Amino acid sequence: MMSSNGSEHPGVYLDNAATTALDPRVIEAMLPYMHQQFGNPSSIHRYGRETRAALERGRKRIADRLNASMGEIFFTSGGTESNNTAIKCAVRDLGVSRVISSTIEHHCVENSLKDQRDRGLVEVEMVRLADKGHVDYAHLEELLAASDKKTLVSLMHANNEVGNLLDIAKVGKLCRQHGAYFHSDTVQTVGHYPLDVQAIEIDFLSGAGHKIHGPKGIGFLYINADCQIRPLIHGGSQERNMRAGTENVYGIIGLAKAVELAVDEMAEAREAIEDVKFYLAERLKTIIPDVAFNGDWENGLYTVLNVAFPARPESDMLLFNLDIKGIAASGGSACSSGSDVGSHVIAAIGDNPGATSVRFSFSRHTTRAEIDYLIETLASIYRVEMSTAG
Amino acid sequence: MMSSNGSEHPGVYLDNAATTALDPRVIEAMLPYMHQQFGNPSSIHRYGRETRAALERGRKRIADRLNASMGEIFFTSGGTESNNTAIKCAVRDLGVSRVISSTIEHHCVENSLKDQRDRGLVEVEMVRLADKGHVDYAHLEELLAASDKKTLVSLMHANNEVGNLLDIAKVGKLCRQHGAYFHSDTVQTVGHYPLDVQAIEIDFLSGAGHKIHGPKGIGFLYINADCQIRPLIHGGSQERNMRAGTENVYGIIGLAKAVELAVDEMAEAREAIEDVKFYLAERLKTIIPDVAFNGDWENGLYTVLNVAFPARPESDMLLFNLDIKGIAASGGSACSSGSDVGSHVIAAIGDNPGATSVRFSFSRHTTRAEIDYLIETLASIYRVEMSTAG
Repeated sequence: MMSSNGSEHPGVYLDNAATTALDPRVIEAMLPYMHQQFGNPSSIHRYGRETRAALERGRKRIADRLNASMGEIFFTSGGTESNNTAIKCAVRDLGVSRVISSTIEHHCVENSLKDQRDRGLVEVEMVRLADKGHVDYAHLEELLAASDKKTLVSLMHANNEVGNLLDIAKVGKLCRQHGAYFHSDTVQTVGHYPLDVQAIEIDFLSGAGHKIHGPKGIGFLYINADCQIRPLIHGGSQERNMRAGTENVYGIIGLAKAVELAVDEMAEAREAIEDVKFYLAERLKTIIPDVAFNGDWENGLYTVLNVAFPARPESDMLLFNLDIKGIAASGGSACSSGSDVGSHVIAAIGDNPGATSVRFSFSRHTTRAEIDYLIETLASIYRVEMSTAG
Repeated sequence: MMSSNGSEHPGVYLDNAATTALDPRVIEAMLPYMHQQFGNPSSIHRYGRETRAALERGRKRIADRLNASMGEIFFTSGGTESNNTAIKCAVRDLGVSRVISSTIEHHCVENSLKDQRDRGLVEVEMVRLADKGHVDYAHLEELLAASDKKTLVSLMHANNEVGNLLDIAKVGKLCRQHGAYFHSDTVQTVGHYPLDVQAIEIDFLSGAGHKIHGPKGIGFLYINADCQIRPLIHGGSQERNMRAGTENVYGIIGLAKAVELAVDEMAEAREAIEDVKFYLAERLKTIIPDVAFNGDWENGLYTVLNVAFPARPESDMLLFNLDIKGIAASGGSACSSGSDVGSHVIAAIGDNPGATSVRFSFSRHTTRAEIDYLIETLASIYRVEMSTAG
């Protein structure tokens, strides 16, 4: 077992779409706000002014990297709260009575929509999926044209399980043409792909610190200045009256540092991660020729490879057997690991029926040596002679 | 300027009701989950199991100290979210159509109730305030008896501005007698007073890490096992389907440690804090004989002294002048510092009209030497000769 997962934790960590290790530079940025500067940013005295200033510097770092204005970035407790806020407040405050979404959204979007629908607040229509689980853009346009009801489109930028990428600019344009609001769960793409809110015609997008080597329990929501919504969580006047509650100062500092690092080091990280992703795909095909990959893997999120292992006895208990060998991977979204049902995304895409789907997800810390160890371990599980297969 | 505020920050920090410095022992407990154990608690592999176990140990520490069961403690992003959840979910899921509250609640309760009332979901009745701003218990009983509508009583345990304490056991009993649900914002009392949910007949109570030397951005909600509510924030199955979103692991670890330390060291801390509170009151009366104190200060929250400085020119800009001298105090709730309106609590109580109200709030790190420095500074502002007044 190696340890290049970005933390001091031993093991081969291939579940970076679930969460990532904190970057030591992020921890370093957070520590002064844990040790010394502890003021409540709403306090008007020096202790408060210090943290308020730090918090606003953090907001600016994020706004700059999205080409947004500072007034469009709101801190939340994470991607889930951001997506809840966008959807529920658009329905409540913007006259939205119809939402177009898909069957492969994250549970926080799916279940927010179910809640709103079950309470009779909106009708929800699902866009059809085309080849490899991509959104069928023609059907989306059809749905947009089919009704005069105020519509919100909620489609994720990159699917967290299979990594399919949405043409976010195209969807933004379609939404504008049809007078619809556009929300995108961008939790898997902030810091991994350039996002320019001036170029993409978008109303809401969300980010979470812990997906990009930042802290857990903190996220942000971009709200286009043209969208006047009111808070989901009521109380004090924090976040310019948009999100009440004493700000998670160290979280915000860490999130801002993580976004900064991820965006500023994007090209190198992407190159390194793509290398291990395609190396893994190639090695897998060598040792298990009937392996397949879910989704549009060659063109999808470079941090994710969702592998369909053949329906053979060796594929049973695969995650368990990898875990024993110190390799962490996932059956799908971590957020649904606690439940017994299989992945709703894999089911919706419908490719590779009967296969055992395992999501391997990478960070800039993942090495070829770790992939080699994974391949050796899989070779042993599938009883492949490495000398002939390697 | 001294530095015994519990952090490495220089200055005299007398705004502990707004927020407190992180206890170094809390930071120490958090750091392993920042450096090494970074797994997503929903992941089933070893990284996830480690943080899941730590999280559940934290839950048990808190549950034990409230005499609650583990299944009744839910982690949130802070006191504001906890109070929002209790109120909004009781209205949505428990058939509550009437809320009895008071005019001196924290904005997160006040504004959650306004939201629910403005949306036509509940009627809200305010209990009268009696002498010194205490809840008029006879009127509360009258209100409870006056209607058959399913009622929620939401009254804070200790007022965050003047420190008045509610007889929480008495209110719990009244609520049970009249079949009402009872929620109490206990953010200012968790860790400062014993709270036993088996002894108090209560349905919801809330806590926040940063008020007791724990982290910001994390809190909990106790939900009585008899109350079946559904989530405010939808998504994954975290917190047993009650609060979605990847858990703020370090925050939870820090919160649990802070609750543990506060409860286990309550007696010593209380003694030390009461000493500085009454010392300050006594010294103030010596140098400014016409000073008064807001609320039932002698019997209230020992961490707070809300001082009514006489209506004299020296009282203008008092917080500003203290801040220049390195002393941090507050005009009221930090959560409303950003707004221009005065304290709604002081206005509701109505004592000491024309006075300048300043809240001094203490921690176990506050020293008599710091109080002496404050008194010297005030003596200078009010042009009192210390030799005769001292």
